[in-house]
Formats: sequence, structure tokens, C-alpha cells
Amino acid sequence: MKLYDLKNGLNPRRVRIFLAEKGISIPSEFVDMMKGENKAQTYLAINPMGLMPVLEFDDGTHLAESIAICRYFEELHPQPPLFGTTTLERAQIEMWNRRMELEIQLPIQDVFVHLNAFWAGRRPQVPEYGRVQQARVLERMAWLNRELADRPYIAGDHYTVADITAQCAFVMGKGTGSKIPDDLTNLIRWFDLVTSRPTARA
Amino acid sequence: MKLYDLKNGLNPRRVRIFLAEKGISIPSEFVDMMKGENKAQTYLAINPMGLMPVLEFDDGTHLAESIAICRYFEELHPQPPLFGTTTLERAQIEMWNRRMELEIQLPIQDVFVHLNAFWAGRRPQVPEYGRVQQARVLERMAWLNRELADRPYIAGDHYTVADITAQCAFVMGKGTGSKIPDDLTNLIRWFDLVTSRPTARA
Repeated sequence: MKLYDLKNGLNPRRVRIFLAEKGISIPSEFVDMMKGENKAQTYLAINPMGLMPVLEFDDGTHLAESIAICRYFEELHPQPPLFGTTTLERAQIEMWNRRMELEIQLPIQDVFVHLNAFWAGRRPQVPEYGRVQQARVLERMAWLNRELADRPYIAGDHYTVADITAQCAFVMGKGTGSKIPDDLTNLIRWFDLVTSRPTARA
Repeated sequence: MKLYDLKNGLNPRRVRIFLAEKGISIPSEFVDMMKGENKAQTYLAINPMGLMPVLEFDDGTHLAESIAICRYFEELHPQPPLFGTTTLERAQIEMWNRRMELEIQLPIQDVFVHLNAFWAGRRPQVPEYGRVQQARVLERMAWLNRELADRPYIAGDHYTVADITAQCAFVMGKGTGSKIPDDLTNLIRWFDLVTSRPTARA
């Protein structure tokens, strides 16, 4: 088994932190996006989307999509539970993880892709759309700050996959135009809490 | 238990088809987006995102996000399985469902939101971004057409939640600028197959 990985990728980091929380270690092969390795035919045969991470099984089966990989390991190694322990809790953590993806991660990525010089010539950039999403990130951070007024973690009293998604999004946002404003004190308290875990730099 | 629902919404339709496939019937309360009911304080207290569907439990608990709701019912009513039956199969169906969301549903929605007169004055429109996403939809439909050359359904031999996501996306795409081109014969065969199920108009 091995993981096709990407050093600074947001999604690969989600899986690395998840595996570290579970105490699971898997060999990684790092794909060099700067050299276009992820768009080479050999890699597109592994994942036609050209994205990382991908889990490769010993029989040659490939599993893409971060949350699909995390869910696979959650079933095999249920401790510590990161997707919840009861039917309702699992559904609620799924809800919070999706809100973190759709309301936080997605617009933070859009700000990066559409407003940052890094992507010039690599992907179509529409700065006006980047600005629309930048306003959305600010609005959603303010909402999340209110949500975190009365609980330590995104989905409640325990650290879950929803925290992993959100912390990786904000780590990317820090250097790409979506830094958490200083007055969002609940959000900053939460970010300091989750990024001080021993797994945060996995 | 009841469902806050929206007649023509893509996501509410996903949940309605899912429940129909399971043979589950839940009372619906339709929220009138045209009258702005989803942005009223009473509804924002139910879902701060202002989106449908939301499942309301008898004790007043709310569960938002279509796939969270579907997953909740999958656990309680495993037959027929729509998320897979083994650990690997569940992970693969999760992968395919996410690909359908990220590579098909999301750009189809973007084409609708950014290029259609319906949204003028309702949401910020960036036509240039709509055109970027329109090119992406075409490219992704061609990819999906190739994938469907050797299997009947999105994730393999059985109808799953990944088909539900994709069929609802293409139903929306039909009238909003993302119709499946005639020459993508595998994709058209699949679309005819899934939309001829008795549950397709749920």
C-alpha cells in the first residue's frame, strides 16, 4: 500500500493528519506538481483528475478523494473515532465536514486560484470571481466564529474530521489572502487549539 | 420528523430520490425561495446556510446537507444499499459520489448561477467565470462518457448515491446551459437508464 502525496497540498495534508491521528503509517510517493508529473499519462492512469492524494493497494486498485481514503481507514481502525460513534453523530459530523468543505475550503481555494500570481498561466484566473469569493470567506469566517462561541471543536466536544478539513483550509488561507481576522477570537482560539496538536504538521 | 424541502432544488431532489429508492416516506414542508423564506430569521435558525433540505427530528434537532441526511437513512435502512456493502466498496462509492459533486454538479451549478438571467440581482454573477466552468463541464462530460464505456452505472454494476448525484446535476444542466451533447452516447445511455427508474421524479 502506498499514498501518492503532495507536500503542500491542502487535501493531501488532510489525509496525513487523519492518518497521524489514527497512528497509521503508510509509505508516500511524492508527485511533483511543479514538474507537471500529475498531468503525465502515467499519473492520469492512476487518477484521471490529476489530483493527489491517491491510495494505491497492493493489487493495483486506486482510491482517490481524501474523505474516501479517510473513511476507508476509519472503518478499519475505528479508534480514535474521527467520524463519530452513533448514527446521528456520524450524520452530524458529515454535515459539519461538508460545511467546512463547501463554506470554508472551497472559497479559500478560489481566492488562492483566482487572485494569486502563483496560478497565472497554470489555471484560468478570473480575479472578479476571486473577489466575490473573498467576500464570502470573510462572511463565513464570521459565521464560524459565532458557532464556536459555545463549543471547543467544529462539530462539538471532540476533535473530528471536520476540524481537520477546516484547519487545513485555514493553513492554506493564511498565506493566500484568507487570514483569520484578529477580532474573530473564537475562531482564533479554535485554530490555536487544533494546530497545537502533535499531528498538525504531519 | 419532517423535511424542509424545495420543489426544483438539485440537492432536495437528491434526498427525495434516495428516500424513494429506500421506500421511506417523510412529510415535507416546502420552503418558498422565491419569497425569500429561506433567508428569513426563522429559517436561518434551522439552517444558518439558508439551504434546503434539512431534516427536522421530533426533538427539534436539525440535520442539514443532503449526503448527511442520506447517510443517516442508509444506516437505519441498509436495503437496498446505495453507499456500498464492503469497506472498499463504500470508499469507492464515496470517491465516485465526490467526483460527481466536484467535477459535474459544482461546475453545472456555476454555469447556471453565473450565466443565467434567473440569478441576476439574486446572487453576484461573474459571466467570465461561468464560461470557464462551462468549458470545464464539457471536458468533464467527455471524461465521464469514456468512464461509462464499460459499466452501466457511475460506480460499477449497481445503482448508487453517485448516480443520484449525477442524474440530479444533469437534470438541472438540461435547462441551464449544460445539456449532454448528442455524441456522448455512453453518457446519454446512462442518463436514459437512471431517469427511467420509477423514483426519478420523486
